[in-house]
Amino acid sequence: MMQSMAQSRTLPESVPAAAGEPLAILCGGGAFPLAVARAARRAGRDVQLFALRGHADPRVVDFPHVWIGLGQYGKLKAELRRRNCRDVVFIGYVLRPRLRDIKLDWQTVKLMPRIIRMLSGGDNHLLSSVGRLFEQDGFRLLGAHEVAPDILVPAGQLGRVAPAREALDDMDIGRRALSVMGPLDIGQGVVVMSRHVVAVEAAEGTDLMLRRCAELRANGRIRRPVPCGVLVKVPKIGQDRRFDLPSLGVVTVEGAAKAGLAGIAVEAGGVIAADLEAIIAAADAAGLFIHGFDPEPEA
Amino acid sequence: MMQSMAQSRTLPESVPAAAGEPLAILCGGGAFPLAVARAARRAGRDVQLFALRGHADPRVVDFPHVWIGLGQYGKLKAELRRRNCRDVVFIGYVLRPRLRDIKLDWQTVKLMPRIIRMLSGGDNHLLSSVGRLFEQDGFRLLGAHEVAPDILVPAGQLGRVAPAREALDDMDIGRRALSVMGPLDIGQGVVVMSRHVVAVEAAEGTDLMLRRCAELRANGRIRRPVPCGVLVKVPKIGQDRRFDLPSLGVVTVEGAAKAGLAGIAVEAGGVIAADLEAIIAAADAAGLFIHGFDPEPEA
Repeated sequence: MMQSMAQSRTLPESVPAAAGEPLAILCGGGAFPLAVARAARRAGRDVQLFALRGHADPRVVDFPHVWIGLGQYGKLKAELRRRNCRDVVFIGYVLRPRLRDIKLDWQTVKLMPRIIRMLSGGDNHLLSSVGRLFEQDGFRLLGAHEVAPDILVPAGQLGRVAPAREALDDMDIGRRALSVMGPLDIGQGVVVMSRHVVAVEAAEGTDLMLRRCAELRANGRIRRPVPCGVLVKVPKIGQDRRFDLPSLGVVTVEGAAKAGLAGIAVEAGGVIAADLEAIIAAADAAGLFIHGFDPEPEA
Repeated sequence: MMQSMAQSRTLPESVPAAAGEPLAILCGGGAFPLAVARAARRAGRDVQLFALRGHADPRVVDFPHVWIGLGQYGKLKAELRRRNCRDVVFIGYVLRPRLRDIKLDWQTVKLMPRIIRMLSGGDNHLLSSVGRLFEQDGFRLLGAHEVAPDILVPAGQLGRVAPAREALDDMDIGRRALSVMGPLDIGQGVVVMSRHVVAVEAAEGTDLMLRRCAELRANGRIRRPVPCGVLVKVPKIGQDRRFDLPSLGVVTVEGAAKAGLAGIAVEAGGVIAADLEAIIAAADAAGLFIHGFDPEPEA
């Protein structure tokens, strides 16, 4: 099971840096941790990376960094305090570990009953429990977008291709489906073709869902012209955006192209992209649109 | 894209046979058409099969039968009238055809604008349009369960294995998820493990969804003990049950076993099974429970 550790909340757009308090970035896998670290540094903030062993990109060495194993909550807490870090950002994916693969330090052992409770239930449950743990120990958890807002996909047509009328209809149907499923903690993506929801993302993730759509076309279960269909992604409703925002990458564009889709629509400000320029270039090359739509007004 | 053509409606439980009017059974693929034909004959009704070419089981020859191609609505209508059939049951799957593979008779050509409209949109839309077409021509469309009620999965524990407490929780979560998704015309099945919806069925169908769950276990994305999890199936809300009830087969049990599930829960009276005894035997052999739950009271 993968989780994305990410961002957002109703806080002021940019969080002021406290003097002498470097921003701690707890780095999981993928391209996002370094993108956030660079953006935060560009914004003038000192950063201190805590790189999850087995997950983080080795290029964390370009920044002040400490390697941390899963299960070393005690060490992490001590290192955070030693470096005077109060603000912490979680970012990057974490593979849900086999318990036997983790070396637990004493702080973590004490927390085990709670961790075991966390490991059952949906992702929202797990991630918000981890968040509460940090906050009880006096840290302030921030979303990556609060320290690096330019990592969020913006509103509007992002590439050269504009969505056709049919694609906008598909997008609306996808948004409706996702808004209904979000409270149930079920995935963050759907594929809609000709007003019909043909795939719903749950534990498999977006890339496997797109591969399924390509297979359903190949075996004749889905018979629509190419291109047809839209991948729609939104953050889940009621989700703590500091931990889990959906993400968009070049691989998403490639998967959507292989599935014969017309484009990708994501909630503006609700989906993160580590390298938006590369994503837009890939979409333009594949003839796909990328559209950021405004979020629904809060109910 | 596959559709199931099946049954149910708020009509009297058994529909009386009109004298000299054989029951027409329009037979798609799979085991259901012959199961319904046998059950209707056991119930004392004359049957006349209309076997869809390329779909129907060749053993339709055991009954009075006529072969019909997709696109031969004119021929079908004429044959129905010639045999004095007024009551028609649709049953079995139909692969959504490539238009170029269909030979259209004149009646069908005249209906093409309407058929093209039908072919866009979700399954409910397509199937209910086909239904209206028949009814406008004076036929009475019945659900298979109205002529063969014993084809519906009954309530209660059906095999030797009883669901554990955790499985009943998973079942409840699956039911809730499906009741929310049904109005959106999205699939009829989910897999829930430890209170977490790990897979949602859309265009891929139940068997491919179960295979995905097995793969997610194999590649470590889902890490739960085996057995864990429940396949939940219900008919979609607001669906015309004469056309599309979900089905259960031995292959479903085998898929659930490979996915490491604890059992299968279906809405009693809302899911069809061509050979329930074989299904129960397969579940008992695999150590899976099969549970028929009472439908929600209508809102």
